[in-house]
Amino acid sequence: MSAFLQVVGQASPDDLSGLRALVESEQLDPKRIVAFLNKTEGNGCVNDFARGYCAHVLHEYLSGELGPEAAEKALLIMSGGCEGVLSPHMNVFSQDGPESDQVTGGLAIGAGKTRDFKAEEIGRMAMVEETARLATELMESLSLSKEDVHFVQIKCPLIRSSDVTEAQEKGVSLATTDTLKSMGYSRGASSLGAAVALGEVELSGLDDSKILGALDLYSGVASSSSGIELRCCEVLIMGNSPLSRSPLRIGHAVMQDALDRDAVVQACVESQGMTDGNFDPEKVANVFAKSEVDPSGMIRGKRHTMLQDSDVSGTRMSRAVVGAIVASVLGRTQVYVSGGAEHQGPPGGGPVAAISWI
Amino acid sequence: MSAFLQVVGQASPDDLSGLRALVESEQLDPKRIVAFLNKTEGNGCVNDFARGYCAHVLHEYLSGELGPEAAEKALLIMSGGCEGVLSPHMNVFSQDGPESDQVTGGLAIGAGKTRDFKAEEIGRMAMVEETARLATELMESLSLSKEDVHFVQIKCPLIRSSDVTEAQEKGVSLATTDTLKSMGYSRGASSLGAAVALGEVELSGLDDSKILGALDLYSGVASSSSGIELRCCEVLIMGNSPLSRSPLRIGHAVMQDALDRDAVVQACVESQGMTDGNFDPEKVANVFAKSEVDPSGMIRGKRHTMLQDSDVSGTRMSRAVVGAIVASVLGRTQVYVSGGAEHQGPPGGGPVAAISWI
Amino acid sequence: MSAFLQVVGQASPDDLSGLRALVESEQLDPKRIVAFLNKTEGNGCVNDFARGYCAHVLHEYLSGELGPEAAEKALLIMSGGCEGVLSPHMNVFSQDGPESDQVTGGLAIGAGKTRDFKAEEIGRMAMVEETARLATELMESLSLSKEDVHFVQIKCPLIRSSDVTEAQEKGVSLATTDTLKSMGYSRGASSLGAAVALGEVELSGLDDSKILGALDLYSGVASSSSGIELRCCEVLIMGNSPLSRSPLRIGHAVMQDALDRDAVVQACVESQGMTDGNFDPEKVANVFAKSEVDPSGMIRGKRHTMLQDSDVSGTRMSRAVVGAIVASVLGRTQVYVSGGAEHQGPPGGGPVAAISWI
Amino acid sequence: MSAFLQVVGQASPDDLSGLRALVESEQLDPKRIVAFLNKTEGNGCVNDFARGYCAHVLHEYLSGELGPEAAEKALLIMSGGCEGVLSPHMNVFSQDGPESDQVTGGLAIGAGKTRDFKAEEIGRMAMVEETARLATELMESLSLSKEDVHFVQIKCPLIRSSDVTEAQEKGVSLATTDTLKSMGYSRGASSLGAAVALGEVELSGLDDSKILGALDLYSGVASSSSGIELRCCEVLIMGNSPLSRSPLRIGHAVMQDALDRDAVVQACVESQGMTDGNFDPEKVANVFAKSEVDPSGMIRGKRHTMLQDSDVSGTRMSRAVVGAIVASVLGRTQVYVSGGAEHQGPPGGGPVAAISWI
Repeated sequence: MSAFLQVVGQASPDDLSGLRALVESEQLDPKRIVAFLNKTEGNGCVNDFARGYCAHVLHEYLSGELGPEAAEKALLIMSGGCEGVLSPHMNVFSQDGPESDQVTGGLAIGAGKTRDFKAEEIGRMAMVEETARLATELMESLSLSKEDVHFVQIKCPLIRSSDVTEAQEKGVSLATTDTLKSMGYSRGASSLGAAVALGEVELSGLDDSKILGALDLYSGVASSSSGIELRCCEVLIMGNSPLSRSPLRIGHAVMQDALDRDAVVQACVESQGMTDGNFDPEKVANVFAKSEVDPSGMIRGKRHTMLQDSDVSGTRMSRAVVGAIVASVLGRTQVYVSGGAEHQGPPGGGPVAAISWI
Repeated sequence: MSAFLQVVGQASPDDLSGLRALVESEQLDPKRIVAFLNKTEGNGCVNDFARGYCAHVLHEYLSGELGPEAAEKALLIMSGGCEGVLSPHMNVFSQDGPESDQVTGGLAIGAGKTRDFKAEEIGRMAMVEETARLATELMESLSLSKEDVHFVQIKCPLIRSSDVTEAQEKGVSLATTDTLKSMGYSRGASSLGAAVALGEVELSGLDDSKILGALDLYSGVASSSSGIELRCCEVLIMGNSPLSRSPLRIGHAVMQDALDRDAVVQACVESQGMTDGNFDPEKVANVFAKSEVDPSGMIRGKRHTMLQDSDVSGTRMSRAVVGAIVASVLGRTQVYVSGGAEHQGPPGGGPVAAISWI
Repeated sequence: MSAFLQVVGQASPDDLSGLRALVESEQLDPKRIVAFLNKTEGNGCVNDFARGYCAHVLHEYLSGELGPEAAEKALLIMSGGCEGVLSPHMNVFSQDGPESDQVTGGLAIGAGKTRDFKAEEIGRMAMVEETARLATELMESLSLSKEDVHFVQIKCPLIRSSDVTEAQEKGVSLATTDTLKSMGYSRGASSLGAAVALGEVELSGLDDSKILGALDLYSGVASSSSGIELRCCEVLIMGNSPLSRSPLRIGHAVMQDALDRDAVVQACVESQGMTDGNFDPEKVANVFAKSEVDPSGMIRGKRHTMLQDSDVSGTRMSRAVVGAIVASVLGRTQVYVSGGAEHQGPPGGGPVAAISWI
Repeated sequence: MSAFLQVVGQASPDDLSGLRALVESEQLDPKRIVAFLNKTEGNGCVNDFARGYCAHVLHEYLSGELGPEAAEKALLIMSGGCEGVLSPHMNVFSQDGPESDQVTGGLAIGAGKTRDFKAEEIGRMAMVEETARLATELMESLSLSKEDVHFVQIKCPLIRSSDVTEAQEKGVSLATTDTLKSMGYSRGASSLGAAVALGEVELSGLDDSKILGALDLYSGVASSSSGIELRCCEVLIMGNSPLSRSPLRIGHAVMQDALDRDAVVQACVESQGMTDGNFDPEKVANVFAKSEVDPSGMIRGKRHTMLQDSDVSGTRMSRAVVGAIVASVLGRTQVYVSGGAEHQGPPGGGPVAAISWI
């Protein structure tokens, strides 16, 4: 068993030239692709069509290479929003690739999809439970213990305008009728699903009111991103497995707030297995972080203005901030930062993972 | 001679409660105020009325305390835009305050205003020359050599819609008819004025076409901010003077790009006169930095999207980025980052200064 | 008794030149001013400081003219947002001005303020009841029957970030913790207050859940605008009173949706007392309309995108739309359109009033 | 010869369900499609990927139906931005469809593409000349005299960030280095091309400086829309041809400003050949209009704020305004309004065409 990560820049949401080059030069076999985890350049909010566009051309490409059925298997997780220095790119996760002879305990990845959710299930317990079930299943398939899991990336749906209209006609209640807010409910519920699977939160202690209601309940490894282009949850689990001979290893930490540079460094250090607190940025394949507007309205005891800015969504600004912090640690800007960290790390903070060459 | 800096948060552009508290507790004598250098919370672009509002209430307050004539003397430099973690605050510069017995070579500040500019002079050589003249005059009055100067803050005007209309009626040409772009021309021309005064750029090598045309000509200490609320340039010069017994000292460096964290550290180190590369964040009174969207469309060799985002001005995003970097160095968010660094540091970078308690 | 309206353009939120000119030419006696109803040019959402700035300079001006105590009496109702063709202007309402000999049944106006509301009262029954009480009181003072009332303008508070933090600390529940949404709750509750006073809605049929919950309950004459610069509700009531000898008369209609041009025409026709369906645009002093994004996501059976646009608030777009419709009826752009019509007219529509010279 | 128009709503940029339904019910034969003229729901500015996404799925669909080569022939003109009430939809133009026995002088359409332009040609004379050449060719092929032409829709390229970088490296000058502004240059140059073809402007009187420099030179029928997804100009010419037996007829007028409702009515009246000034909205297939922020900063003698709003592009607001005006004339919202009318009608105004069932 082995897992592999390649990072490819994009000049636009439909630019596959970098991906094609990898395939044509035989550095990547499309059959081995498990998931794309992309930073696309829309606004990352409701009317962001760059995510769907990129997913569409990727699906089209895979269909051409693998046939329509095999193409369905790869997860296409598009996280919108490249604010500030963040540079649009794909993280291509593949398996059964190059193995390292000497190593075990390398990177292992598993991917799957839940069933489609009804609008009234989005951001509620049905989503928590179904996501927990899938995450547990994936861990078992990789022989990962809870401690071995360092990142659980989830792509989850949102409630659309048309869902709201339909629900009102049917008299069905939704978690929220605000399409932008529904992204937060969906991220929150699916992240709590991961937390349940990993034993971070007890299922029995949860109900609908806790979702966005009890933000002290969270996962330290979940990373959820919401989009209009799907109706199910797609889950990509990452850990270090005793069975894996991957030349890569993953580590993680939890940012306590948007300025917690030390946590980014710690994730890098752990991924390289160093004990002296140092790491080699050149050996980091990529960093994956969550960002969030601190819901208290304060950072380090002082007021921020992101909750009061009616011109720019705070989600966008928080990505710009965490993107700058992560980029300053690595000295480069093709880093993955996804906005909205409800139940992912403490309020205002979020999980951060690093994958390094051993 | 002595110069002093106090940092006061604001809950809104018209919130003077912190300032009043300083005065009422006799920590600040309004008569000694030389300049306000504020981070206000508008969009920092053309239609940002938070700057004018804050300046208005400050002027009103000073008039009440000092009488209308004395109130005119204090510079009211409002830099708009508190994106990301940046927290709205005032930097209150005063003089002839508490002196330190043991020290010379402390912080000295000088302030002045140019004449009002006509719309057709904004962003052109008339502005360069007049700003250079005033900066030179201020340096002489403080006995500052060119090497002693570490920051030249300038507030400069912009070209308004009504200016464009008037110019078209009169058949007068302007540097630009785009009000947002005029902010850049004005910052560029006034910064080149500072560069000329400090011997960084030769006046004889300049003409109108060089302003925004030759970005390799720049000042390493100028920081210009443009606003709709004034027609002249206001200049605040800061240096370490042999005559000053201030308990504060200033240092500076030049950020080579938006992620140049080392330059921020270096400015702090220099301000504390340390030789081992360390500094004490607690002793830093504040950091003053410029931010700018890299005009090449790239940062560290990878594409950024700030020049193509038609929803959010790149100026706003660049403040969010540099604000995050500076805040992560100091561990706090009431830091001063002003957007638009044309002819202020290299393209994509900008000057950064730190003022510390000795 | 008489009431009077003068319309004055503004070049910026602090531009009082037009107002001063009216006073200096003795066309307006500041002592007679009852209320300002201004269209200011911020974003009309939470972080819109143009409203506060304009109110501040108006208060300052009135204090200088009338003394601080008398200055408190004039209502300063600032409605933010001049999108599209809307042109920033003041509507200056005054009383006891020029009277017409022949006429009775002319325009009468009354103004008052409720007590300040606690954050937890905003958008709830306390606000409904208190606003109803004040509106009833004002009607009685003007001898206006319910049928005589054609417009009830209300300026109401919003829940601020700091309110949210405080409430969370105290464990107090708020109508919403979203500052932008709180504007809607506040407009809704205060408008229901007017509806109760006018007998359009029964108080006994209302509770907190109905506010934004039962949008089929509404006033056909209420117009509420929310802002960060006040904590009470300010109410300005307008009607045609048998006691008034004003040379102006008011009429109103209810727009059924944002494109209901006929309702705008009808309000103008009624204000001029015409029976043939015609009116003279030159005789219209001004039109006052509400706008709202249709919450169904549809207009005339087709999808609109305003609820899914995460870059521009739908409130702003809806003002642009209704502003264009009203301006096309009058052939001019200094018209008053205020965004957010919760419980003001049917969902997607809103009241519109016209004041004309008889 | 015959030309036909069908209007189909879209629930998202990749929604082809309406188009598929037309084809499946045999109301439309894909082989007969000449051009799509779509209103898509992005921001209509530089980083609007909804246009490209929609064009991509349309191309994919046509390739599946017709084979890749035939699919290339249909023009895919995507005009971004559905602000305010505007509802996303496709205008499907086809030819050789149902003919009317009694009629001649019906709608005729012709479509073609210029060669790809280099970045340095965009917004300059090369674009004017090449577009004029193509338009003339298309007119001849349809036997249209200049008076018979009522609308010339052009989709033109823009200068991208990468073009700017490349040009700077090569030392090549561009019409502008601002990607957003380049959209205006490109629209302006291609519209002047149409004006030359139609004899509205003399080619000999033009040079690069006139493009955006002499806005009194314009076409009364050109409508240009700029996008990142193409490098050539695509031209769709529409007129009433003596050879055409189409059941549709086209008429046009020129809006003098954004509020010129009468011009919209006039275009509808002309398209129905009425002499009494009336028309039947039910018989209008669709209206096609251009919108533009009045560059003078004024509308009907009063200030507008669209040029000073740094949060929302004026192009977006102007579409909201003209969209509201057109929709109020027809009583429906699937109408075509495209932003940016440089050299298309007088400054602040623009051409408007209506196509009606005879």
